[in-house]
Amino acid sequence: MRYLLYYWPSIQGRGEFVRLALEDAGADYVDVARRPGGMARMMRLMDSRSVAQPPFAPPFLAAGKQLIAQSANILLHLAPRLGLAPKSEAARLWLHQLQLTIADWVTEAHDAHHPIGSGLYYEEQKREAKRRAEDFRINRLPKFLDYFGALAAPKHRARVTYVDLSLFQMIAGLRYAFPRAMAGLERRRAWVAALHDRVALRPRLAAYLASPRRIPFNESGIFRHYAELDRQIIGA
Amino acid sequence: MRYLLYYWPSIQGRGEFVRLALEDAGADYVDVARRPGGMARMMRLMDSRSVAQPPFAPPFLAAGKQLIAQSANILLHLAPRLGLAPKSEAARLWLHQLQLTIADWVTEAHDAHHPIGSGLYYEEQKREAKRRAEDFRINRLPKFLDYFGALAAPKHRARVTYVDLSLFQMIAGLRYAFPRAMAGLERRRAWVAALHDRVALRPRLAAYLASPRRIPFNESGIFRHYAELDRQIIGA
Repeated sequence: MRYLLYYWPSIQGRGEFVRLALEDAGADYVDVARRPGGMARMMRLMDSRSVAQPPFAPPFLAAGKQLIAQSANILLHLAPRLGLAPKSEAARLWLHQLQLTIADWVTEAHDAHHPIGSGLYYEEQKREAKRRAEDFRINRLPKFLDYFGALAAPKHRARVTYVDLSLFQMIAGLRYAFPRAMAGLERRRAWVAALHDRVALRPRLAAYLASPRRIPFNESGIFRHYAELDRQIIGA
Repeated sequence: MRYLLYYWPSIQGRGEFVRLALEDAGADYVDVARRPGGMARMMRLMDSRSVAQPPFAPPFLAAGKQLIAQSANILLHLAPRLGLAPKSEAARLWLHQLQLTIADWVTEAHDAHHPIGSGLYYEEQKREAKRRAEDFRINRLPKFLDYFGALAAPKHRARVTYVDLSLFQMIAGLRYAFPRAMAGLERRRAWVAALHDRVALRPRLAAYLASPRRIPFNESGIFRHYAELDRQIIGA
């Protein structure tokens, strides 16, 4: 099956969680909006008048006749087919639960620099971002890390699933956006680097990460580095 | 099957989306944290050391041996069993995609009064909330409404699913929180009242909504009425 992935062409964003699964599995896919004319095709599919089941926003995936949106929902469909999740209903629900928790984390990482409105520039909400980013660094970041850290313990460890790929992406993004906060937090959380490296060294992913297909982090995406929003966390 | 629902006892919150499905189906369930000793039981299950698959946050549902968290994930599991969703994989994915979009909308409705931190009081972020609520009312509210409005058109209409119950809850909550904005928006969007009433008049739901099991909206939940965050939208 050739998959068609639709996502904004200049950022990793939420599309990257899907890309990582496709790349790790060596799946046949086209990153539509990065091809000539692809943006127009993507915008047409978002128009509810011409599409029976229109997405609210990218990313979305065409899999045969199905058009599937919401990154966690796309992965719910894809992962068992790509060998990145078990096929039993109970196991799939559990992984999806984790992925939805990651999706909430992604939103909070984004809102750390955009607490007022996603349609406004960062510069228009810089003061508010400073307060929100502080709350994110001090209260939310350790809470999310420690939730997933408890699950990274040996008793939970099994073979790699798409949730591990998404956790890798969270760690990479958070290190980019909050290098000082993350350095402090990682000091007592060795599992973070271990999980990151375990995923990054998977042969197909290592090749992908070194390729031009991996869009560099930048200040248009979910994870943005603004030095004024980052600070070391004492005693984290 | 007797379901055990775990959620904060004094607010509708995200638990209400699950409650509406259970109530509409006449399912056998216990609202655990509203019973004596229930809060302690709920807190124990959130402790990752004693539970194999711990939830990050309420709501969560015990269904036999399974513990399922994330409201959209709970509904993904429950709805076909309760007769509130078709059983085909494609239809379930589509409804789940809509439910995840509602979940995003819920987060934005919450953050309209809590743009800086969920652990802070509203009074500590009142100034920021004024800006965020304005963006929510003017930009986000019409966008979400019109997305679901296009799907409420006759060609999409089929029998009621759990997504309709959740849309009812959104409408009820938004009318409570933003009565002036919603009155203006509903003037040209007749489907909003039609969908609301169609769901509210379902016999089991009507009985539930009139019962003490339906917690009233209040200023601790997702949808909060603060007059200073509401305003009529001109020409919406």
